[in-house]
Amino acid sequence: MTQESDHGRMPATQGSRIDAYVDRYAARATGMVASEIRALFSVASRPEVVSLAGGMPYVTALPLDVVGELVSDLVAKRGPVALQYGSGQGDPHLREQICEVMRLEGIESGPDDVVVTVGSQQALDLITRIFIDPGDVVLAEGPSYVGALGTFSAYQAKVVHIAMDDEGIIPESLAQTIYALQTAGSRIKFLYTVPTFQNPAGVTLSVARRRQVLEICQRAGILIIEDNPYGLLGFDGDPMRALRADNADGVVYLGSFSKTLAPGFRVGWALAPHAIREKLVLAMESAVLSHSSFTQLAVGQYLATQPWREQIKTFRELYRERRDALLDALEAVMPAGCTWTRPRGGFFVWMTLPEGLDSKAILPRAVSERVAFVPGTGFFTDGGGARHMRLSYCYPEPDRIREGVRRLARVIEQEMRLRDTFGTSSAPDHGGVDTPGPDLA
Amino acid sequence: MTQESDHGRMPATQGSRIDAYVDRYAARATGMVASEIRALFSVASRPEVVSLAGGMPYVTALPLDVVGELVSDLVAKRGPVALQYGSGQGDPHLREQICEVMRLEGIESGPDDVVVTVGSQQALDLITRIFIDPGDVVLAEGPSYVGALGTFSAYQAKVVHIAMDDEGIIPESLAQTIYALQTAGSRIKFLYTVPTFQNPAGVTLSVARRRQVLEICQRAGILIIEDNPYGLLGFDGDPMRALRADNADGVVYLGSFSKTLAPGFRVGWALAPHAIREKLVLAMESAVLSHSSFTQLAVGQYLATQPWREQIKTFRELYRERRDALLDALEAVMPAGCTWTRPRGGFFVWMTLPEGLDSKAILPRAVSERVAFVPGTGFFTDGGGARHMRLSYCYPEPDRIREGVRRLARVIEQEMRLRDTFGTSSAPDHGGVDTPGPDLA
Repeated sequence: MTQESDHGRMPATQGSRIDAYVDRYAARATGMVASEIRALFSVASRPEVVSLAGGMPYVTALPLDVVGELVSDLVAKRGPVALQYGSGQGDPHLREQICEVMRLEGIESGPDDVVVTVGSQQALDLITRIFIDPGDVVLAEGPSYVGALGTFSAYQAKVVHIAMDDEGIIPESLAQTIYALQTAGSRIKFLYTVPTFQNPAGVTLSVARRRQVLEICQRAGILIIEDNPYGLLGFDGDPMRALRADNADGVVYLGSFSKTLAPGFRVGWALAPHAIREKLVLAMESAVLSHSSFTQLAVGQYLATQPWREQIKTFRELYRERRDALLDALEAVMPAGCTWTRPRGGFFVWMTLPEGLDSKAILPRAVSERVAFVPGTGFFTDGGGARHMRLSYCYPEPDRIREGVRRLARVIEQEMRLRDTFGTSSAPDHGGVDTPGPDLA
Repeated sequence: MTQESDHGRMPATQGSRIDAYVDRYAARATGMVASEIRALFSVASRPEVVSLAGGMPYVTALPLDVVGELVSDLVAKRGPVALQYGSGQGDPHLREQICEVMRLEGIESGPDDVVVTVGSQQALDLITRIFIDPGDVVLAEGPSYVGALGTFSAYQAKVVHIAMDDEGIIPESLAQTIYALQTAGSRIKFLYTVPTFQNPAGVTLSVARRRQVLEICQRAGILIIEDNPYGLLGFDGDPMRALRADNADGVVYLGSFSKTLAPGFRVGWALAPHAIREKLVLAMESAVLSHSSFTQLAVGQYLATQPWREQIKTFRELYRERRDALLDALEAVMPAGCTWTRPRGGFFVWMTLPEGLDSKAILPRAVSERVAFVPGTGFFTDGGGARHMRLSYCYPEPDRIREGVRRLARVIEQEMRLRDTFGTSSAPDHGGVDTPGPDLA
């Protein structure tokens, strides 16, 4: 991990000092407390620890000299625009380029339906802001992206998880859950899904199920939020066809340049049906006035002048090698009883521990053995995930990945011996969402 | 105006198409409709129109060659950090530099209490998010910054305006309003104020009144949000001492590099009491994960290597010349009955029209006469401001300012003749907040 984590110096736990404002916060803010595992992750960012926790892309694979030239060129040629306020919807030319990127996934769209956001995280925040009243229901895969769960909970949504397997969301589970909730009078506002190379599970919704999920949601009148940061990072074959490609009115598509270029620019986007797009622009202006013209134009310049498809291919090959390193190492050293997913793209493997083991309880020991992961409970809002962990292969080099897996295997074997000696280890309390901070999302 | 306004091509007015989601939005989103004057402002962005409407800083006064070198240098030397995710609180070194900037206004603070935000607008959004439940009261000057009013209304706050004069907030009015509201059982969450070179009124809270406002709020247990983007842009003497300099526990201070450097980086900040700062970081992560490392490090590099105090002096002299051009022109050509404020810094003059005139009704005629301003109603939530308008002198060159004022004077004279012939012109409907879009805020 390259950046300093602040949370190590001052863990932001509730009650570390007396809070004079404790009676004055909004209801939504009472749940805003830092995760207890945050301090642990700041230890995990030390260089001697192999972190299989973070979701940081390997930006060192970018041609830094080219990027440097590009940004200085931008200031020389378009400085007064790049340094000025921009429009709330985002740079018009970049929005056209974004439509071109989405065409790789079968999406036909126009720039007027795109809103450029501060990473796709902000698109999630704004979508939640315009749709969620306290108590409204959001459907999400179980497990689901921790950053999305944090945002939903910040707006006091109730998240209901949909079961998934190696082919993604199980359509029958989706249909049954919707039926049960609607019968009970719940207001379901949308289905949030990462259909391709899912974070954290690494699985991909199959073609046949895509059609079923679209049909089920359309029939039930439920909007789909398709979050697709990893779609172009598949290891074999052409990109999957996006859900949005087959339903322009019922899907809001979220995209990002954080994984195909660099997260440091914070450029993501939402593609939305017209009426929703109008609200998104107003919410965007209320939230930040406008995104950085500088970073938007830098991304636009990069797309216009550089072989970006080739760069994505470079990333794909790099991440495939790391995925292989992780899967081979798991196969070689993990004790019997551990199982894991086999991603065909993206950043993550989801591992299931033998019965009686708890990933959150194991984490402190793992960190002291110099390996880190994210415990599965962070990806559920209902206390699920205790026997699971997310392993990322995006950032460490292959040799480090192999070393990390060896360390992890030793820790798990030790835990299994403890379990066999003393019985099932007591699970820690799983209240709230474990947000490990932005660098680990 | 240098950037394209999208709103001219597709005015985002409610009902322009049928909205399939009209029943599904959150309660807070029902008020999110675009201002009726937005389309007019996109006309006003044509080059032949002298815009006294926009609040865009004159970034052309920056040494663009230096900025270009600086950003390419940044990629060469710190590329892997600048292009990566950062921490939710913001770059630690930049936060130290921010403390140094605030010291110019008498503020003693440490970097641990600073949160870097996407412009100070995002700081406003996050503060409102953690404090405001629907129906809570926010106190604000009348008139107040349109972008703040938009954010408060997005969180369903009730804004109550406090009367002001040429010395800023009138302390007696503040005390009486607080008393009346608290007696009536209202929950006042904070006082929002732009004490120095106020947007839009151009006035500055006097030293004596600063003490009184601090005392009144402290006694009543009301937090102060001190929004201070223009504090270093005074035309004579040293910077005013910030409210925060005299009360570290009761004031959240918002700052920005948008006016002292460039808005295109979108780097602002909040300095907050410790407990509030903790919530702000969590809200920040939920909203955008983290701000752009690239733009934060670019600002940090600029502060570390460039004579930034000298650059601010350059801006001050430039804006003083334009302020003089505006005031002299107003004095020379405005008809009797018009009055205006005389700012000692910042970007804005607040003009009061003769009785019976309505600034919003005048705007279309003014735009057709090739001059634009922002009608006063946008700066109130209670229908006030009809006889007022905000005139900005920050962006147009002095000759253009003088020409714009001549055009405006002719329009106002014509309106006065119409009034004298036909009686008081009928005021248009003043519902909602008129948000003219980010480039005009």
